[in-house]
Amino acid sequence: MPAASAAAGPGERERESEFESEFDRDTALTLKEPGVYHAEVSGGWSIVSAVNGGYLTAMLGRALAGTLPHPHPFTVTAHFLTATRPGPAVIRTSVARTGTTLSTGSASLHQTDEHGRETERIRLLGTYGDLTRLSDSVRTSAKPPVLPPPEQCVPVADAPDGALPGDLTMLDRLAARLDPDTVGWALGRPSGRGEVRGWFALADGRELDPLALLLVGDALPPTAFDLGLAGGWVPTIEYTTHVRALPAPGPVRVAISTRNLAGGFLEEDAEIWDSADRLVAQSRQLARAPRG
Amino acid sequence: MPAASAAAGPGERERESEFESEFDRDTALTLKEPGVYHAEVSGGWSIVSAVNGGYLTAMLGRALAGTLPHPHPFTVTAHFLTATRPGPAVIRTSVARTGTTLSTGSASLHQTDEHGRETERIRLLGTYGDLTRLSDSVRTSAKPPVLPPPEQCVPVADAPDGALPGDLTMLDRLAARLDPDTVGWALGRPSGRGEVRGWFALADGRELDPLALLLVGDALPPTAFDLGLAGGWVPTIEYTTHVRALPAPGPVRVAISTRNLAGGFLEEDAEIWDSADRLVAQSRQLARAPRG
Repeated sequence: MPAASAAAGPGERERESEFESEFDRDTALTLKEPGVYHAEVSGGWSIVSAVNGGYLTAMLGRALAGTLPHPHPFTVTAHFLTATRPGPAVIRTSVARTGTTLSTGSASLHQTDEHGRETERIRLLGTYGDLTRLSDSVRTSAKPPVLPPPEQCVPVADAPDGALPGDLTMLDRLAARLDPDTVGWALGRPSGRGEVRGWFALADGRELDPLALLLVGDALPPTAFDLGLAGGWVPTIEYTTHVRALPAPGPVRVAISTRNLAGGFLEEDAEIWDSADRLVAQSRQLARAPRG
Repeated sequence: MPAASAAAGPGERERESEFESEFDRDTALTLKEPGVYHAEVSGGWSIVSAVNGGYLTAMLGRALAGTLPHPHPFTVTAHFLTATRPGPAVIRTSVARTGTTLSTGSASLHQTDEHGRETERIRLLGTYGDLTRLSDSVRTSAKPPVLPPPEQCVPVADAPDGALPGDLTMLDRLAARLDPDTVGWALGRPSGRGEVRGWFALADGRELDPLALLLVGDALPPTAFDLGLAGGWVPTIEYTTHVRALPAPGPVRVAISTRNLAGGFLEEDAEIWDSADRLVAQSRQLARAPRG
Protein backbone atom coordinates (compact mmCIF):
# COMPACT_ATOMS: atom_id res chain seq x y z
CA MET A 1 0.00 0.00 0.00
CA PRO A 2 2.41 2.72 -1.15
CA ALA A 3 -0.14 5.54 -0.79
CA ALA A 4 -0.77 4.70 2.86
CA SER A 5 2.96 4.37 3.54
CA ALA A 6 3.69 7.74 2.02
CA ALA A 7 1.00 9.36 4.18
CA ALA A 8 2.12 7.66 7.40
CA GLY A 9 4.50 9.22 9.88
CA PRO A 10 8.04 7.82 10.27
CA GLY A 11 7.09 5.65 13.26
CA GLU A 12 4.28 3.99 11.42
CA ARG A 13 6.43 3.40 8.35
CA GLU A 14 9.00 1.70 10.54
CA ARG A 15 6.43 -0.60 12.07
CA GLU A 16 5.15 -1.51 8.61
CA SER A 17 8.58 -2.36 7.30
CA GLU A 18 9.33 -4.46 10.39
CA PHE A 19 6.12 -6.44 10.11
CA GLU A 20 6.73 -9.93 8.79
CA SER A 21 3.66 -12.09 8.55
CA GLU A 22 3.58 -15.68 9.72
CA PHE A 23 2.76 -16.72 6.17
CA ASP A 24 5.72 -14.88 4.63
CA ARG A 25 8.12 -15.98 7.36
CA ASP A 26 7.06 -19.61 7.04
CA THR A 27 7.21 -19.72 3.22
CA ALA A 28 10.53 -17.83 3.02
CA LEU A 29 13.19 -19.41 0.81
CA THR A 30 16.95 -19.13 0.49
CA LEU A 31 18.40 -19.43 -3.00
CA LYS A 32 21.19 -22.02 -2.95
CA GLU A 33 21.98 -22.16 -6.65
CA PRO A 34 19.98 -21.19 -9.73
CA GLY A 35 16.55 -22.79 -9.42
CA VAL A 36 17.31 -24.53 -6.08
CA TYR A 37 16.00 -23.23 -2.76
CA HIS A 38 16.43 -24.12 0.86
CA ALA A 39 13.18 -24.03 2.83
CA GLU A 40 12.26 -24.55 6.44
CA VAL A 41 8.87 -26.25 6.76
CA SER A 42 7.16 -24.77 9.79
CA GLY A 43 5.28 -26.84 12.34
CA GLY A 44 2.93 -23.90 12.71
CA TRP A 45 0.72 -25.02 9.82
CA SER A 46 0.06 -28.54 11.07
CA ILE A 47 -3.54 -29.71 11.12
CA VAL A 48 -4.95 -33.06 12.17
CA SER A 49 -1.94 -35.31 11.44
CA ALA A 50 -0.08 -33.46 8.71
CA VAL A 51 1.42 -30.20 7.53
CA ASN A 52 -1.34 -28.41 5.60
CA GLY A 53 -1.19 -29.00 1.85
CA GLY A 54 -2.28 -25.48 0.99
CA TYR A 55 0.60 -24.00 2.99
CA LEU A 56 3.06 -26.34 1.26
CA THR A 57 1.62 -25.53 -2.16
CA ALA A 58 2.15 -21.84 -1.44
CA MET A 59 5.77 -22.55 -0.48
CA LEU A 60 6.46 -24.39 -3.73
CA GLY A 61 4.48 -21.73 -5.55
CA ARG A 62 6.83 -19.11 -4.14
CA ALA A 63 9.83 -21.08 -5.37
CA LEU A 64 8.40 -21.27 -8.88
CA ALA A 65 7.62 -17.53 -8.79
CA GLY A 66 11.31 -17.01 -8.01
CA THR A 67 12.44 -19.10 -10.97
CA LEU A 68 9.95 -18.03 -13.64
CA PRO A 69 9.89 -14.51 -15.10
CA HIS A 70 6.20 -13.99 -14.24
CA PRO A 71 5.07 -13.24 -10.69
CA HIS A 72 1.63 -14.80 -10.25
CA PRO A 73 0.41 -18.39 -10.30
CA PHE A 74 -2.36 -18.68 -12.91
CA THR A 75 -2.77 -22.45 -12.54
CA VAL A 76 -0.83 -24.63 -10.12
CA THR A 77 -1.18 -28.38 -9.50
CA ALA A 78 0.52 -30.14 -6.58
CA HIS A 79 0.70 -33.91 -6.11
CA PHE A 80 1.42 -35.06 -2.56
CA LEU A 81 3.70 -38.08 -2.56
CA THR A 82 4.87 -38.66 1.01
CA ALA A 83 4.12 -36.81 4.25
CA THR A 84 6.14 -33.60 4.56
CA ARG A 85 7.55 -33.05 8.07
CA PRO A 86 8.40 -29.79 9.81
CA GLY A 87 12.09 -29.05 9.29
CA PRO A 88 14.53 -28.39 6.48
CA ALA A 89 13.66 -29.06 2.85
CA VAL A 90 15.11 -28.47 -0.58
CA ILE A 91 12.95 -27.24 -3.45
CA ARG A 92 14.23 -27.82 -6.97
CA THR A 93 12.58 -26.01 -9.85
CA SER A 94 12.69 -26.67 -13.57
CA VAL A 95 11.61 -24.27 -16.32
CA ALA A 96 9.50 -25.79 -19.08
CA ARG A 97 8.91 -22.62 -21.09
CA THR A 98 9.12 -18.87 -20.70
CA GLY A 99 6.84 -16.85 -22.96
CA THR A 100 5.76 -13.24 -23.24
CA THR A 101 2.56 -13.57 -21.25
CA LEU A 102 2.87 -17.01 -19.60
CA SER A 103 5.64 -19.22 -18.24
CA THR A 104 5.51 -22.81 -17.07
CA GLY A 105 7.69 -24.84 -14.76
CA SER A 106 7.87 -27.61 -12.18
CA ALA A 107 8.98 -27.65 -8.55
CA SER A 108 9.70 -30.57 -6.22
CA LEU A 109 10.09 -30.54 -2.47
CA HIS A 110 12.58 -33.01 -0.99
CA GLN A 111 13.44 -33.92 2.59
CA THR A 112 15.85 -36.33 4.18
CA ASP A 113 13.89 -39.25 5.61
CA GLU A 114 14.55 -41.17 8.82
CA HIS A 115 17.04 -43.43 6.99
CA GLY A 116 19.04 -40.43 5.76
CA ARG A 117 17.75 -40.77 2.21
CA GLU A 118 16.53 -37.82 0.19
CA THR A 119 12.82 -38.34 -0.47
CA GLU A 120 10.52 -36.42 -2.78
CA ARG A 121 7.49 -35.14 -0.85
CA ILE A 122 5.60 -33.01 -3.37
CA ARG A 123 5.77 -32.44 -7.11
CA LEU A 124 4.14 -29.34 -8.56
CA LEU A 125 3.47 -28.05 -12.07
CA GLY A 126 2.42 -24.47 -12.68
CA THR A 127 1.86 -21.78 -15.27
CA TYR A 128 2.49 -18.20 -14.21
CA GLY A 129 1.55 -14.81 -15.62
CA ASP A 130 0.98 -11.25 -14.49
CA LEU A 131 -2.53 -10.65 -13.12
CA THR A 132 -2.06 -6.88 -13.27
CA ARG A 133 -1.90 -7.10 -17.05
CA LEU A 134 -5.23 -8.84 -17.62
CA SER A 135 -8.13 -7.04 -19.24
CA ASP A 136 -10.86 -5.69 -16.97
CA SER A 137 -13.63 -7.58 -18.73
CA VAL A 138 -15.62 -9.80 -16.35
CA ARG A 139 -18.50 -12.04 -17.41
CA THR A 140 -18.89 -14.30 -14.40
CA SER A 141 -22.16 -16.22 -14.23
CA ALA A 142 -21.25 -17.81 -10.88
CA LYS A 143 -22.74 -16.11 -7.83
CA PRO A 144 -20.88 -15.41 -4.60
CA PRO A 145 -21.88 -17.68 -1.71
CA VAL A 146 -24.63 -16.31 0.50
CA LEU A 147 -23.13 -16.02 3.97
CA PRO A 148 -24.17 -14.33 7.22
CA PRO A 149 -21.86 -11.46 8.18
CA PRO A 150 -18.63 -12.56 9.91
CA GLU A 151 -19.90 -11.70 13.39
CA GLN A 152 -22.74 -14.20 12.92
CA CYS A 153 -20.37 -16.94 11.73
CA VAL A 154 -18.53 -19.43 13.91
CA PRO A 155 -14.78 -19.05 14.46
CA VAL A 156 -13.10 -22.34 13.48
CA ALA A 157 -11.09 -22.19 16.68
CA ASP A 158 -14.36 -22.35 18.66
CA ALA A 159 -15.08 -25.92 17.53
CA PRO A 160 -16.00 -28.05 20.56
CA ASP A 161 -13.31 -30.33 21.94
CA GLY A 162 -12.94 -33.39 19.77
CA ALA A 163 -14.90 -32.01 16.82
CA LEU A 164 -11.61 -31.51 15.00
CA PRO A 165 -9.21 -34.39 15.60
CA GLY A 166 -5.51 -34.22 16.31
CA ASP A 167 -3.14 -31.29 15.92
CA LEU A 168 -4.92 -27.95 15.52
CA THR A 169 -1.85 -25.67 15.47
CA MET A 170 -2.73 -24.10 12.12
CA LEU A 171 -6.02 -22.70 13.40
CA ASP A 172 -4.13 -20.04 15.39
CA ARG A 173 -2.92 -18.57 12.10
CA LEU A 174 -6.34 -18.35 10.48
CA ALA A 175 -9.18 -15.91 11.04
CA ALA A 176 -11.74 -18.29 9.54
CA ARG A 177 -15.43 -18.13 10.43
CA LEU A 178 -17.88 -20.72 9.17
CA ASP A 179 -21.49 -20.31 8.12
CA PRO A 180 -23.50 -21.78 11.05
CA ASP A 181 -25.49 -23.68 8.41
CA THR A 182 -22.38 -25.73 7.54
CA VAL A 183 -20.99 -26.53 11.00
CA GLY A 184 -23.52 -29.13 12.15
CA TRP A 185 -20.79 -31.78 11.92
CA ALA A 186 -19.02 -30.15 14.90
CA LEU A 187 -22.09 -30.99 16.99
CA GLY A 188 -22.55 -34.45 15.54
CA ARG A 189 -25.22 -33.30 13.06
CA PRO A 190 -23.59 -33.11 9.62
CA SER A 191 -25.96 -31.91 6.89
CA GLY A 192 -24.89 -34.65 4.47
CA ARG A 193 -24.72 -32.11 1.63
CA GLY A 194 -20.92 -31.94 1.49
CA GLU A 195 -20.73 -28.16 1.78
CA VAL A 196 -18.59 -25.83 3.87
CA ARG A 197 -18.82 -22.04 3.57
CA GLY A 198 -17.06 -19.32 5.46
CA TRP A 199 -15.05 -16.15 5.73
CA PHE A 200 -11.27 -16.41 5.56
CA ALA A 201 -8.39 -14.12 6.45
CA LEU A 202 -4.96 -14.59 7.93
CA ALA A 203 -5.01 -14.06 11.70
CA ASP A 204 -2.11 -11.60 11.72
CA GLY A 205 -3.83 -9.33 9.22
CA ARG A 206 -1.57 -9.99 6.25
CA GLU A 207 -3.65 -9.30 3.17
CA LEU A 208 -4.27 -12.18 0.78
CA ASP A 209 -2.34 -12.19 -2.49
CA PRO A 210 -2.11 -14.80 -5.26
CA LEU A 211 0.39 -16.95 -3.32
CA ALA A 212 -1.78 -16.88 -0.19
CA LEU A 213 -4.81 -17.91 -2.28
CA LEU A 214 -2.97 -21.22 -2.87
CA LEU A 215 -3.38 -21.79 0.86
CA VAL A 216 -7.01 -20.70 1.13
CA GLY A 217 -8.58 -23.44 -1.01
CA ASP A 218 -7.20 -26.09 1.36
CA ALA A 219 -7.56 -24.25 4.67
CA LEU A 220 -11.18 -24.77 5.75
CA PRO A 221 -12.46 -27.97 7.39
CA PRO A 222 -13.00 -30.69 4.76
CA THR A 223 -16.42 -31.22 3.19
CA ALA A 224 -16.09 -34.85 4.27
CA PHE A 225 -17.00 -33.70 7.80
CA ASP A 226 -20.29 -32.26 6.47
CA LEU A 227 -20.85 -35.60 4.69
CA GLY A 228 -20.78 -37.34 8.06
CA LEU A 229 -17.21 -38.59 7.80
CA ALA A 230 -15.93 -36.38 10.63
CA GLY A 231 -13.02 -37.40 12.73
CA GLY A 232 -10.63 -38.73 10.11
CA TRP A 233 -7.82 -37.29 8.11
CA VAL A 234 -8.65 -36.46 4.49
CA PRO A 235 -5.28 -36.75 2.75
CA THR A 236 -5.00 -34.69 -0.41
CA ILE A 237 -3.66 -36.53 -3.44
CA GLU A 238 -3.73 -33.66 -5.88
CA TYR A 239 -4.67 -29.99 -5.52
CA THR A 240 -5.12 -27.56 -8.40
CA THR A 241 -5.81 -23.84 -8.06
CA HIS A 242 -6.63 -21.31 -10.76
CA VAL A 243 -5.93 -17.78 -9.56
CA ARG A 244 -8.10 -15.55 -11.72
CA ALA A 245 -7.66 -12.06 -10.29
CA LEU A 246 -5.71 -10.08 -7.70
CA PRO A 247 -7.83 -10.13 -4.55
CA ALA A 248 -9.08 -6.81 -3.19
CA PRO A 249 -8.11 -6.10 0.44
CA GLY A 250 -10.13 -7.71 3.21
CA PRO A 251 -11.40 -11.17 4.04
CA VAL A 252 -12.57 -13.52 1.28
CA ARG A 253 -15.63 -15.72 1.17
CA VAL A 254 -14.98 -19.39 0.45
CA ALA A 255 -17.50 -22.00 -0.64
CA ILE A 256 -16.38 -25.62 -0.79
CA SER A 257 -18.45 -28.50 -2.09
CA THR A 258 -18.17 -32.18 -2.92
CA ARG A 259 -20.40 -33.72 -5.59
CA ASN A 260 -18.82 -37.14 -5.97
CA LEU A 261 -17.81 -39.26 -2.98
CA ALA A 262 -17.22 -42.69 -4.52
CA GLY A 263 -14.86 -45.61 -4.35
CA GLY A 264 -13.08 -44.16 -1.33
CA PHE A 265 -12.16 -40.87 -3.02
CA LEU A 266 -13.78 -37.47 -3.26
CA GLU A 267 -13.19 -34.14 -4.95
CA GLU A 268 -13.38 -30.79 -3.16
CA ASP A 269 -14.23 -27.73 -5.24
CA ALA A 270 -13.55 -24.33 -3.71
CA GLU A 271 -14.54 -20.91 -4.97
CA ILE A 272 -12.89 -17.88 -3.40
CA TRP A 273 -14.60 -14.48 -3.68
CA ASP A 274 -13.01 -11.20 -2.64
CA SER A 275 -14.53 -8.13 -0.98
CA ALA A 276 -15.19 -6.58 -4.40
CA ASP A 277 -17.35 -9.60 -5.40
CA ARG A 278 -14.73 -10.96 -7.80
CA LEU A 279 -14.28 -14.72 -8.15
CA VAL A 280 -10.52 -14.58 -7.53
CA ALA A 281 -9.72 -18.30 -7.42
CA GLN A 282 -11.20 -21.70 -8.19
CA SER A 283 -9.59 -24.80 -6.77
CA ARG A 284 -10.24 -28.52 -6.90
CA GLN A 285 -8.57 -31.33 -5.06
CA LEU A 286 -8.78 -35.10 -5.20
CA ALA A 287 -8.59 -36.62 -1.73
CA ARG A 288 -8.98 -39.95 -0.04
CA ALA A 289 -12.19 -40.20 1.92
CA PRO A 290 -11.77 -40.86 5.62
CA ARG A 291 -13.20 -44.18 6.76
CA GLY A 292 -15.80 -42.26 8.82
CA MET B 1 -14.50 -58.88 -22.93
CA PRO B 2 -13.03 -62.34 -22.31
CA ALA B 3 -16.43 -64.04 -21.95
CA ALA B 4 -17.58 -62.84 -25.36
CA SER B 5 -14.28 -63.80 -26.94
CA ALA B 6 -14.45 -67.29 -25.53
CA ALA B 7 -17.99 -67.70 -26.88
CA ALA B 8 -17.15 -66.41 -30.35
CA GLY B 9 -16.17 -68.59 -33.26
CA PRO B 10 -12.64 -68.51 -34.61
CA GLY B 11 -13.53 -66.05 -37.39
CA GLU B 12 -15.01 -63.58 -34.98
CA ARG B 13 -12.06 -63.91 -32.63
CA GLU B 14 -9.76 -63.16 -35.51
CA ARG B 15 -11.66 -60.05 -36.45
CA GLU B 16 -11.56 -58.88 -32.85
CA SER B 17 -7.85 -59.32 -32.61
CA GLU B 18 -7.28 -57.55 -35.93
CA PHE B 19 -9.37 -54.54 -34.98
CA GLU B 20 -7.21 -51.59 -34.05
CA SER B 21 -9.07 -48.44 -33.21
CA GLU B 22 -8.07 -45.04 -34.51
CA PHE B 23 -7.53 -43.93 -30.92
CA ASP B 24 -5.21 -46.83 -30.07
CA ARG B 25 -3.32 -46.59 -33.35
CA ASP B 26 -2.81 -42.84 -32.96
CA THR B 27 -1.69 -43.00 -29.32
CA ALA B 28 0.60 -46.00 -29.83
CA LEU B 29 4.11 -45.66 -28.42
CA THR B 30 7.44 -47.36 -29.03
CA LEU B 31 9.71 -47.81 -26.04
CA LYS B 32 13.17 -46.47 -26.91
CA GLU B 33 14.83 -46.84 -23.52
CA PRO B 34 13.43 -47.13 -19.98
CA GLY B 35 10.91 -44.33 -19.53
CA VAL B 36 11.41 -42.84 -23.02
CA TYR B 37 8.94 -43.38 -25.85
CA HIS B 38 8.77 -42.54 -29.52
CA ALA B 39 5.35 -41.30 -30.61
CA GLU B 40 3.84 -40.28 -33.91
CA VAL B 41 1.39 -37.41 -33.46
CA SER B 42 -1.44 -37.99 -35.90
CA GLY B 43 -2.96 -35.24 -38.01
CA GLY B 44 -6.26 -37.05 -37.63
CA TRP B 45 -7.10 -35.30 -34.35
CA SER B 46 -6.67 -31.75 -35.58
CA ILE B 47 -9.44 -29.30 -34.81
CA VAL B 48 -9.70 -25.60 -35.65
CA SER B 49 -5.98 -24.70 -35.78
CA ALA B 50 -4.33 -27.26 -33.49
CA VAL B 51 -3.95 -30.89 -32.57
CA ASN B 52 -6.61 -31.60 -29.93
CA GLY B 53 -5.31 -31.30 -26.37
CA GLY B 54 -7.41 -34.19 -25.08
CA TYR B 55 -5.90 -36.54 -27.66
CA LEU B 56 -2.39 -35.39 -26.72
CA THR B 57 -3.14 -35.76 -23.01
CA ALA B 58 -4.25 -39.34 -23.66
CA MET B 59 -0.98 -40.01 -25.51
CA LEU B 60 1.12 -38.72 -22.62
CA GLY B 61 -1.21 -40.53 -20.24
CA ARG B 62 -0.45 -43.77 -22.06
CA ALA B 63 3.28 -43.14 -21.70
CA LEU B 64 2.94 -42.60 -17.96
CA ALA B 65 0.81 -45.76 -17.67
CA GLY B 66 3.70 -47.60 -19.31
CA THR B 67 6.24 -46.25 -16.84
CA LEU B 68 4.27 -46.42 -13.58
CA PRO B 69 3.23 -49.73 -11.97
CA HIS B 70 -0.48 -48.74 -11.86
CA PRO B 71 -2.64 -48.85 -14.99
CA HIS B 72 -5.23 -46.08 -14.65
CA PRO B 73 -4.93 -42.30 -14.48
CA PHE B 74 -6.65 -41.11 -11.29
CA THR B 75 -5.67 -37.47 -11.73
CA VAL B 76 -3.72 -36.06 -14.65
CA THR B 77 -2.76 -32.44 -15.36
CA ALA B 78 -1.30 -31.32 -18.69
CA HIS B 79 0.18 -27.87 -19.38
CA PHE B 80 0.38 -26.92 -23.05
CA LEU B 81 3.57 -24.98 -23.76
CA THR B 82 3.95 -24.72 -27.53
CA ALA B 83 1.79 -25.97 -30.39
CA THR B 84 2.28 -29.69 -31.02
CA ARG B 85 2.48 -30.56 -34.73
CA PRO B 86 1.55 -33.81 -36.46
CA GLY B 87 4.69 -35.91 -36.84
CA PRO B 88 7.31 -37.60 -34.70
CA ALA B 89 7.69 -36.82 -31.01
CA VAL B 90 9.62 -38.09 -28.01
CA ILE B 91 7.93 -38.55 -24.63
CA ARG B 92 10.16 -38.68 -21.56
CA THR B 93 8.72 -39.87 -18.29
CA SER B 94 9.97 -39.47 -14.73
CA VAL B 95 8.79 -41.42 -11.70
CA ALA B 96 8.15 -39.36 -8.58
CA ARG B 97 6.91 -42.16 -6.32
CA THR B 98 5.58 -45.67 -6.58
CA GLY B 99 3.33 -46.80 -3.74
CA THR B 100 1.07 -49.73 -3.02
CA THR B 101 -2.15 -48.11 -4.18
CA LEU B 102 -0.97 -44.98 -6.01
CA SER B 103 2.01 -43.93 -8.12
CA THR B 104 2.96 -40.49 -9.40
CA GLY B 105 5.11 -39.32 -12.27
CA SER B 106 5.68 -36.71 -14.96
CA ALA B 107 5.79 -36.92 -18.74
CA SER B 108 6.97 -34.38 -21.31
CA LEU B 109 6.39 -34.38 -25.05
CA HIS B 110 9.18 -32.96 -27.21
CA GLN B 111 9.40 -32.27 -30.92
CA THR B 112 12.07 -30.85 -33.20
CA ASP B 113 11.06 -27.34 -34.21
CA GLU B 114 11.59 -25.66 -37.59
CA HIS B 115 15.11 -24.60 -36.53
CA GLY B 116 16.07 -28.19 -35.71
CA ARG B 117 15.95 -27.57 -31.97
CA GLU B 118 14.22 -29.94 -29.57
CA THR B 119 11.27 -28.08 -28.05
CA GLU B 120 9.07 -29.12 -25.15
CA ARG B 121 5.41 -29.05 -26.20
CA ILE B 122 3.54 -30.43 -23.19
CA ARG B 123 4.41 -31.19 -19.58
CA LEU B 124 2.13 -33.52 -17.62
CA LEU B 125 1.91 -34.62 -14.00
CA GLY B 126 -0.24 -37.57 -12.97
CA THR B 127 -1.12 -39.96 -10.18
CA TYR B 128 -2.19 -43.46 -11.19
CA GLY B 129 -3.95 -46.31 -9.44
CA ASP B 130 -6.11 -49.33 -10.21
CA LEU B 131 -9.79 -48.47 -10.64
CA THR B 132 -10.77 -52.14 -10.43
CA ARG B 133 -9.62 -52.19 -6.81
CA LEU B 134 -11.78 -49.34 -5.53
CA SER B 135 -14.66 -49.98 -3.17
CA ASP B 136 -18.18 -50.09 -4.63
CA SER B 137 -19.48 -47.37 -2.34
CA VAL B 138 -21.02 -44.45 -4.24
CA ARG B 139 -22.48 -41.33 -2.64
CA THR B 140 -22.69 -38.94 -5.57
CA SER B 141 -24.93 -35.93 -5.02
CA ALA B 142 -24.34 -34.65 -8.56
CA LYS B 143 -27.07 -35.53 -11.06
CA PRO B 144 -26.46 -36.71 -14.62
CA PRO B 145 -27.19 -34.09 -17.28
CA VAL B 146 -30.72 -34.22 -18.69
CA LEU B 147 -30.35 -34.87 -22.40
CA PRO B 148 -32.70 -35.87 -25.19
CA PRO B 149 -31.98 -39.36 -26.56
CA PRO B 150 -29.10 -39.46 -29.07
CA GLU B 151 -31.42 -39.63 -32.07
CA GLN B 152 -32.90 -36.27 -31.06
CA CYS B 153 -29.45 -34.69 -30.63
CA VAL B 154 -27.40 -32.96 -33.32
CA PRO B 155 -24.32 -34.72 -34.75
CA VAL B 156 -21.35 -32.36 -34.39
CA ALA B 157 -20.40 -33.10 -37.97
CA ASP B 158 -23.75 -31.62 -39.09
CA ALA B 159 -22.75 -28.10 -38.00
CA PRO B 160 -23.52 -25.63 -40.81
CA ASP B 161 -20.58 -24.49 -42.93
CA GLY B 162 -18.56 -21.89 -41.07
CA ALA B 163 -20.10 -22.57 -37.64
CA LEU B 164 -16.92 -24.38 -36.66
CA PRO B 165 -13.82 -22.60 -37.95
CA GLY B 166 -10.73 -24.11 -39.54
CA ASP B 167 -9.66 -27.75 -39.60
CA LEU B 168 -12.43 -30.19 -38.62
CA THR B 169 -10.54 -33.45 -39.22
CA MET B 170 -11.09 -34.73 -35.68
CA LEU B 171 -14.87 -34.72 -36.05
CA ASP B 172 -14.68 -37.79 -38.31
CA ARG B 173 -13.34 -39.77 -35.35
CA LEU B 174 -16.09 -38.75 -32.93
CA ALA B 175 -19.68 -39.89 -32.64
CA ALA B 176 -20.69 -36.80 -30.70
CA ARG B 177 -24.26 -35.52 -30.65
CA LEU B 178 -25.16 -32.25 -28.95
CA ASP B 179 -28.27 -31.32 -27.03
CA PRO B 180 -30.24 -29.06 -29.44
CA ASP B 181 -30.63 -26.68 -26.49
CA THR B 182 -26.87 -25.99 -26.52
CA VAL B 183 -26.18 -25.62 -30.27
CA GLY B 184 -27.73 -22.19 -30.88
CA TRP B 185 -24.24 -20.79 -31.47
CA ALA B 186 -24.01 -22.83 -34.69
CA LEU B 187 -26.96 -20.79 -36.01
CA GLY B 188 -25.69 -17.48 -34.65
CA ARG B 189 -27.90 -17.66 -31.55
CA PRO B 190 -25.66 -18.60 -28.59
CA SER B 191 -27.54 -18.96 -25.32
CA GLY B 192 -24.96 -16.94 -23.38
CA ARG B 193 -25.07 -19.52 -20.54
CA GLY B 194 -21.71 -21.12 -21.33
CA GLU B 195 -23.05 -24.67 -21.45
CA VAL B 196 -22.54 -27.53 -23.89
CA ARG B 197 -24.12 -30.95 -23.36
CA GLY B 198 -24.03 -34.03 -25.49
CA TRP B 199 -23.53 -37.72 -26.09
CA PHE B 200 -20.01 -38.91 -26.86
CA ALA B 201 -18.53 -42.07 -28.31
CA LEU B 202 -15.64 -42.88 -30.61
CA ALA B 203 -16.82 -43.16 -34.22
CA ASP B 204 -15.18 -46.55 -34.83
CA GLY B 205 -16.96 -48.13 -31.87
CA ARG B 206 -13.96 -48.50 -29.60
CA GLU B 207 -15.32 -48.49 -26.07
CA LEU B 208 -14.18 -45.73 -23.74
CA ASP B 209 -11.66 -46.60 -21.06
CA PRO B 210 -9.79 -44.42 -18.56
CA LEU B 211 -7.23 -43.29 -21.16
CA ALA B 212 -9.95 -42.38 -23.65
CA LEU B 213 -11.74 -40.38 -20.94
CA LEU B 214 -8.72 -38.05 -20.97
CA LEU B 215 -9.78 -37.18 -24.52
CA VAL B 216 -13.49 -36.78 -23.83
CA GLY B 217 -13.32 -33.77 -21.51
CA ASP B 218 -11.67 -31.73 -24.26
CA ALA B 219 -13.49 -33.12 -27.30
CA LEU B 220 -16.80 -31.22 -27.49
CA PRO B 221 -17.12 -27.68 -28.89
CA PRO B 222 -15.94 -25.11 -26.37
CA THR B 223 -18.41 -23.40 -24.04
CA ALA B 224 -16.98 -20.11 -25.34
CA PHE B 225 -19.11 -20.67 -28.47
CA ASP B 226 -22.25 -20.81 -26.31
CA LEU B 227 -21.06 -17.60 -24.62
CA GLY B 228 -21.16 -15.85 -27.97
CA LEU B 229 -17.44 -16.07 -28.68
CA ALA B 230 -17.83 -18.45 -31.60
CA GLY B 231 -15.36 -18.47 -34.40
CA GLY B 232 -12.09 -18.30 -32.53
CA TRP B 233 -9.63 -20.80 -31.22
CA VAL B 234 -9.79 -21.45 -27.45
CA PRO B 235 -6.25 -22.54 -26.61
CA THR B 236 -6.00 -24.71 -23.52
CA ILE B 237 -3.37 -23.65 -21.02
CA GLU B 238 -3.92 -26.42 -18.49
CA TYR B 239 -6.24 -29.42 -18.43
CA THR B 240 -6.86 -31.64 -15.41
CA THR B 241 -8.97 -34.81 -15.39
CA HIS B 242 -9.98 -36.96 -12.43
CA VAL B 243 -11.00 -40.43 -13.60
CA ARG B 244 -13.26 -41.76 -10.87
CA ALA B 245 -14.54 -45.08 -12.18
CA LEU B 246 -14.18 -47.52 -15.08
CA PRO B 247 -16.83 -46.51 -17.61
CA ALA B 248 -19.55 -49.04 -18.46
CA PRO B 249 -19.85 -49.89 -22.18
CA GLY B 250 -21.71 -47.50 -24.44
CA PRO B 251 -21.75 -43.78 -25.08
CA VAL B 252 -21.22 -41.32 -22.25
CA ARG B 253 -23.07 -38.10 -21.51
CA VAL B 254 -20.93 -35.01 -21.15
CA ALA B 255 -21.91 -31.69 -19.61
CA ILE B 256 -19.49 -28.78 -19.91
CA SER B 257 -19.94 -25.40 -18.28
CA THR B 258 -18.09 -22.15 -17.73
CA ARG B 259 -18.84 -20.02 -14.69
CA ASN B 260 -16.04 -17.47 -14.86
CA LEU B 261 -15.06 -15.75 -18.11
CA ALA B 262 -12.87 -12.88 -16.93
CA GLY B 263 -9.68 -11.07 -17.83
CA GLY B 264 -9.38 -12.95 -21.11
CA PHE B 265 -9.41 -16.41 -19.53
CA LEU B 266 -12.09 -18.95 -18.74
CA GLU B 267 -12.41 -22.33 -17.09
CA GLU B 268 -14.29 -25.26 -18.61
CA ASP B 269 -15.69 -27.87 -16.23
CA ALA B 270 -16.75 -31.19 -17.71
CA GLU B 271 -18.63 -34.04 -16.09
CA ILE B 272 -18.68 -37.39 -17.85
CA TRP B 273 -21.45 -39.88 -17.01
CA ASP B 274 -21.52 -43.47 -18.24
CA SER B 275 -24.45 -45.64 -19.32
CA ALA B 276 -24.77 -46.99 -15.77
CA ASP B 277 -25.31 -43.45 -14.42
CA ARG B 278 -21.88 -43.29 -12.80
CA LEU B 279 -19.96 -40.02 -12.76
CA VAL B 280 -16.82 -41.54 -14.28
CA ALA B 281 -14.72 -38.40 -14.77
CA GLN B 282 -14.57 -34.74 -13.83
CA SER B 283 -12.29 -32.41 -15.75
CA ARG B 284 -11.43 -28.74 -15.65
CA GLN B 285 -9.33 -26.68 -17.98
CA LEU B 286 -8.05 -23.12 -17.97
CA ALA B 287 -8.15 -21.62 -21.46
CA ARG B 288 -7.65 -18.31 -23.17
CA ALA B 289 -10.90 -16.78 -24.29
CA PRO B 290 -11.18 -16.13 -28.01
CA ARG B 291 -11.50 -12.47 -28.93
CA GLY B 292 -15.06 -13.15 -30.14
